[in-house]
Amino acid sequence: MADDFFDSSDNDRSNKPLLHAESWTLPEPLSLEGGGVLDNVTVVYETYGKLNAEKSNAIFICHALSGDSHVASHDSDDDPGWWELMVGPGKPIDTNRYFVVCANILGGCRGTTGPEDINPATGIPYGKDFPAICIADIVNVNHKLICDHFGIPSLFALVGGSLGGFMALDWAVRYPDTLYGSIMIATGARLSQQSRAFDVIARNAITSDPNFCDGQYYDKIVGPKKGLAIARQLGHITYLSREAMNRKSASDRKVDSPFETIYPVGSYLAHQGDKFVERFDANSYCTLSIALDDYNQSQTFEDLTEDLKKSRCRWLCVSFSSDWLFVPSQTKEIVDAALAAGKEVSYCNVASEAGHDGFLLKPEIDFYGQLVSAFLRNLESNPQVGVHKEPNADPAEFPEKRPVPYRLKHRIDFDRILELIPPGKSVLDLGCGKGELLLRLRQRGDDVLLGVELEQKCVLHCIQHDLNVIHTDMDKGLRSFRDNQFDFVVLSKTLQTVRNVELVLSEMLRIGKTAIVSFPNFGYHRFRTQLEMFGTAPQTDTRPGRKWFNTNDVRFLTIADFRELCNVKRYRIQKMIALDTEREIEIPEEESPNVLADVAIIALTK
Amino acid sequence: MADDFFDSSDNDRSNKPLLHAESWTLPEPLSLEGGGVLDNVTVVYETYGKLNAEKSNAIFICHALSGDSHVASHDSDDDPGWWELMVGPGKPIDTNRYFVVCANILGGCRGTTGPEDINPATGIPYGKDFPAICIADIVNVNHKLICDHFGIPSLFALVGGSLGGFMALDWAVRYPDTLYGSIMIATGARLSQQSRAFDVIARNAITSDPNFCDGQYYDKIVGPKKGLAIARQLGHITYLSREAMNRKSASDRKVDSPFETIYPVGSYLAHQGDKFVERFDANSYCTLSIALDDYNQSQTFEDLTEDLKKSRCRWLCVSFSSDWLFVPSQTKEIVDAALAAGKEVSYCNVASEAGHDGFLLKPEIDFYGQLVSAFLRNLESNPQVGVHKEPNADPAEFPEKRPVPYRLKHRIDFDRILELIPPGKSVLDLGCGKGELLLRLRQRGDDVLLGVELEQKCVLHCIQHDLNVIHTDMDKGLRSFRDNQFDFVVLSKTLQTVRNVELVLSEMLRIGKTAIVSFPNFGYHRFRTQLEMFGTAPQTDTRPGRKWFNTNDVRFLTIADFRELCNVKRYRIQKMIALDTEREIEIPEEESPNVLADVAIIALTK
Repeated sequence: MADDFFDSSDNDRSNKPLLHAESWTLPEPLSLEGGGVLDNVTVVYETYGKLNAEKSNAIFICHALSGDSHVASHDSDDDPGWWELMVGPGKPIDTNRYFVVCANILGGCRGTTGPEDINPATGIPYGKDFPAICIADIVNVNHKLICDHFGIPSLFALVGGSLGGFMALDWAVRYPDTLYGSIMIATGARLSQQSRAFDVIARNAITSDPNFCDGQYYDKIVGPKKGLAIARQLGHITYLSREAMNRKSASDRKVDSPFETIYPVGSYLAHQGDKFVERFDANSYCTLSIALDDYNQSQTFEDLTEDLKKSRCRWLCVSFSSDWLFVPSQTKEIVDAALAAGKEVSYCNVASEAGHDGFLLKPEIDFYGQLVSAFLRNLESNPQVGVHKEPNADPAEFPEKRPVPYRLKHRIDFDRILELIPPGKSVLDLGCGKGELLLRLRQRGDDVLLGVELEQKCVLHCIQHDLNVIHTDMDKGLRSFRDNQFDFVVLSKTLQTVRNVELVLSEMLRIGKTAIVSFPNFGYHRFRTQLEMFGTAPQTDTRPGRKWFNTNDVRFLTIADFRELCNVKRYRIQKMIALDTEREIEIPEEESPNVLADVAIIALTK
Repeated sequence: MADDFFDSSDNDRSNKPLLHAESWTLPEPLSLEGGGVLDNVTVVYETYGKLNAEKSNAIFICHALSGDSHVASHDSDDDPGWWELMVGPGKPIDTNRYFVVCANILGGCRGTTGPEDINPATGIPYGKDFPAICIADIVNVNHKLICDHFGIPSLFALVGGSLGGFMALDWAVRYPDTLYGSIMIATGARLSQQSRAFDVIARNAITSDPNFCDGQYYDKIVGPKKGLAIARQLGHITYLSREAMNRKSASDRKVDSPFETIYPVGSYLAHQGDKFVERFDANSYCTLSIALDDYNQSQTFEDLTEDLKKSRCRWLCVSFSSDWLFVPSQTKEIVDAALAAGKEVSYCNVASEAGHDGFLLKPEIDFYGQLVSAFLRNLESNPQVGVHKEPNADPAEFPEKRPVPYRLKHRIDFDRILELIPPGKSVLDLGCGKGELLLRLRQRGDDVLLGVELEQKCVLHCIQHDLNVIHTDMDKGLRSFRDNQFDFVVLSKTLQTVRNVELVLSEMLRIGKTAIVSFPNFGYHRFRTQLEMFGTAPQTDTRPGRKWFNTNDVRFLTIADFRELCNVKRYRIQKMIALDTEREIEIPEEESPNVLADVAIIALTK
C-alpha cells in the first residue's frame, strides 16, 4: 500500500453520515437476557443486492466491536466500507447473487440504540445506565430485523468475523431453523483470558479518565477522549502481528496528538486513538466489550459440542496463522466441536503474517475470499438436510450450477478401496489431497464424507468441489474426531509420509470402525532388484523431480513389515489386497504379494 | 504453587526497607551520554558472598525494569529476593563461590538516584526534569561501582535477564576488558515495535492521569496511581504466556481495588497494579521505559556483529519458547551476531509454557540454572583468550576442577573423521548430540569447536562438558553462520535424519571450507540381503526399540546415491572412507564399498 502507516484495515473508518443507511424500530419492547426491557429499540442497517422472491438469498453480516452497518460502498460515490474487498458485485460475497444485510449492533453508536441515546425514563442519554447487554441480546435484535422486518424465514448465510463470530455462533445455536450456512472468520467460542485482560485494562483507562464523569459526559465539552483513545491503542496492538507492527513502525510520519509521539510506533498509535474517538462512544465501548468478555458459548468442549448439536447449518471456519487475538486453536475448537456434534464443517488456517487484521486485508481476502465464495456456491446446490429445502431460486438469480468435478484419472487402488467400503458408509480420508477418492465416493452416491489435509491449496480445491475438509496436520494427532465417528477412516498412499505412524494408526482405529491403509510396498521385486543390482536406494515417490533427498516419503515398509506391526499392536487385518498397479492386477496371497505387489491395501480393525 | 493467583514472579515485591542495602556516592558528577551531568549520584546495592583476594570472582546482576538490588535474601530473617531461586549458597549463582553484586539502576526508585530525589538546582524533586538517561548511563554507573568503588579489575560474569540483558550487552561492548563471561536471559538487542507500543501506551496512561501534574506530584496527596497501575497491568500481560494467563485467571479471588474486578482476570490485574504503585514511582517508570525503548544496540545485524567483535567475553544466551515479550528469535539474533563476530557463545531455547515470566519461575530455573552454573564453572577453568588470565584463585575458593568428560566409547568412524581434520582447525559439528566427537577433538588439543543440536538435554550436556553449543534446528537453515566461518563442518551419522538435505549440504559448504558427511550406507550387503531374502525393510537406526515406524531416520541412501547427488550439485568429493564398522576395517574403493561398507565418510568441497 502507498502509505502503510495510515492504511485502513478497520482503523480509519470515518464518522461521515451513512448515506444509504435505513432504520427500523422494534414494534415491541426488547426483553433482555439479563432481565429488564429496552423500549423503542431502533436498528440501523444497510442492504446490498436484491432479495429474491423466495427470500432465500439473504446473507447477514455481523460486524466486530468497532464496525458498523457500512460493510461496503453502495456506488462509486459512496465511501468504502469496512469489508469493501469482500462484499459487492462479483466479489466473494456477491451482491449480484445475494441480498446482503449488515446492521449496527445493539449498544453501538452508529445509529442503533445504545448508551448515547435518550433514556425515555429520564429524558437524558442512558450513559452508563444503559442496561448490561449480552451477545444474545444483540443477536435477538438482528434476528427480529431479518425475520420480522424483512420476513425472511431463513438466512442463506450468516457471516461473522472476529467478535462478529460470537454473534454467528449464538444465532446458529439458538435459531437453528433460520440458517443454512455459517461462516466464522478469525473467531472462537469465547475470548482468551489474555484478550479479556486487555479489555479490562482498556475499560480501566476509560473509567479512570476524569472526563468520564461516571458515564454522564454527553453534556460536557470534553468526553473521556484520552481514556477511549488509550483503549483503542491497546486494542490496535492486538490486531497486528509482531511482524505487521514492525512494518507499521517503519514510517517516520509524525502526527499531532495529545499522546506521546516520540517514536514512530507512538505516532502510529496516537493516530489510531485520535481517529477513533471522533467516531466512537466510550460508553458503547464499555457496554460492548463487557458483552464480549461475558460471552462464553460453553465452558467445556463437551458443552460446546452439545450446543452445536442444536445447530442445523453447514459451517465454514477460517483462521489466520499469525492471529494472536483469536489464535487458530480457538477457531479450531469450534471446528472440533462441530465435528463431534456430527455437523458438516470445513476449516482452513490461512497462512498470513498480518495477524488478526488479515481478516480485512487484500492478500488474505484474495485467498480466503475464494473459500467463502465456494462455500456459498456449495450451499446453493447442496442444502443441508433438515431446515434446508432447495433454495429453488429463479435461474436468473442462481444461474450457475455447482462445478462438475474434473475428470478423475482411473486408479485401480481407488477402485479396490471403494470395493472395501459398502455404499452409504461414512468415510474420513486422511491426507485427502485434492479429494480424488472422496469425489469417487460421492460419484457413487455416498455423502457422509470428510477430508483431512495439510496443504492450504488442496483445502481450497476440496471446498471448491463441495467436499468438507479440515486443514490440519495429522502428525499432531486427530483429537478433533470422536471415537467411532466414522465407519471408515482411510489413509491412502500417505502412510509413507507420516512421522507418527503409531499415533496415526491408533487414532484411525479409535475414530473409525474400520481403518483402510494403502501404501507402496518396499518389498516389490523391482525395488529389491534396484538395491541388489544397482546399489541405489529404491524410491516409493514417483512424482517427477523427487529423489531420496527431497521426497516427502519418510517411512519405508514392506507388506511384511506392516503385518508385523499389526501383529505387535494386535490390530486385526480384515482384508488385504495386494496390487500390481502397473499391470492392474491383484496378486493373490499364494503368489507372494510382498514380492509382486507394488501397493498394498489393508483393512484393519481393533 | 499454593495460590497461583497471588504468586510472586517479579510481581509481589514488597516496599519494605532493604535491610542489607549499602550505598555509594560517585565522587565525580556523572556525564550523561545525551549531554549534561548529574551531580551526587548515589548507588544503592547489595552484595552476597565474599570477594576473593584477587578480586576475580565478582558477578554483577543487572535487574529488569521494576527490580531492585534485593536479588536474594541475605539470611533466613530476610525477605526473599526477586531471584531467590537463582542466587544463594549452593544455588546456580553460588554465593559460596562467587561475590555477587546487584545495584538498583540509575533512574530507579529504590535508593539509587532517580526522579524522586531532590534536584540540587531547585531544592525540589527532579520529577520530570530528571534528565533523559539511556542504558549506557545506567551501565556507566554500574561500571564505576564495580571498578572504582570495589576496585574489581574485571567481572567474572555479568548476568542480565529481560531488560537487564540490555545492560549486559552494552557493558560487554563498551567495557570489553572488564568482563570474562556474559549471561543473557530472555532478552535481545532492542525491544520489538510491539513491546515499544505497549510502553508508549503505558506512558500515555501515566501522563494522562490528572494526578500526574506534569511530573511534579511529590507534594500532592495523591500521585498518578491510576495511570501507573494501568501501566503495570499492561506490562504484566506481556510477562505471561497465553497459557499462563489462563491459569492465573482460574482463581475466583476478588480484590478490593479502584479498578474493574468483575472478572477474575480483572481482579488479578487490579492486584498487580495496586501492589505496584505502593513501591514504584511513575516518573521512574517513564524515565526507565524510555531508556529501554531508546535502546538499540545496532540497527542492523551487520552492525550488531561489528559491535560484538569488540566484546571479549564468553557468552551464554537463554530464551524461553513461549516468551512473547522477547521472542526467542530476538535472543537468537545476539547469538548469531556473536557467532558472526567469532565469539564463543552457547545458546539454549528452554521449553516453557510460562512466557517471559519463566525467567523467574522454579521449573524453568531448575533447568536453566544448570546451564548457568555449568557456564560459570566453564569460565573458571577455561578463561577466554585475551583479557582472561587464569583467575588463579585460591584453591579453597575455587575448589573443584572442571568435570572430566565421561569415558568415550571407541568409534572407528570418529577415528577416521578425526584423521580427516588436521589438528588446530576450527570445526562445527551439526547434530552434535552429547558432543562425543567434539570432546575427542578437544582431547587431542583442538579448541575452536562448536556444536549445533536440537535436543535441549543434549545442549545442557554439552555445556556441562564445556563445549559451546547452539540450540537450533538445522532443517530450518543455518543462517547463524557466516561464509567460510569454519575449516570443517561435520554432519556425522545425522544426514539420514535431515528433511532438507539439499539446504543442509549447501549450508555446510557455505559455512565450511570442507564438509564431512558420514552416513549409514543403505547399500550395505546385509541390508540388501534383508530386503531380498526376508522381505522386510532394512533399518539404519540401530538404537533399541527403533523400527521403521518410529525411527528418526527419514532418508535412505547408498554411497552411490550420495555420489550421484554430489555429481549433480557439482560438489567435489575430496576423500571417501568406507567402513565396515563391525569388523572395524576400511573397505578400499576396488572392493565395492557400496556393498561391503555399512558407513561412509565423505569429505566434500565446492
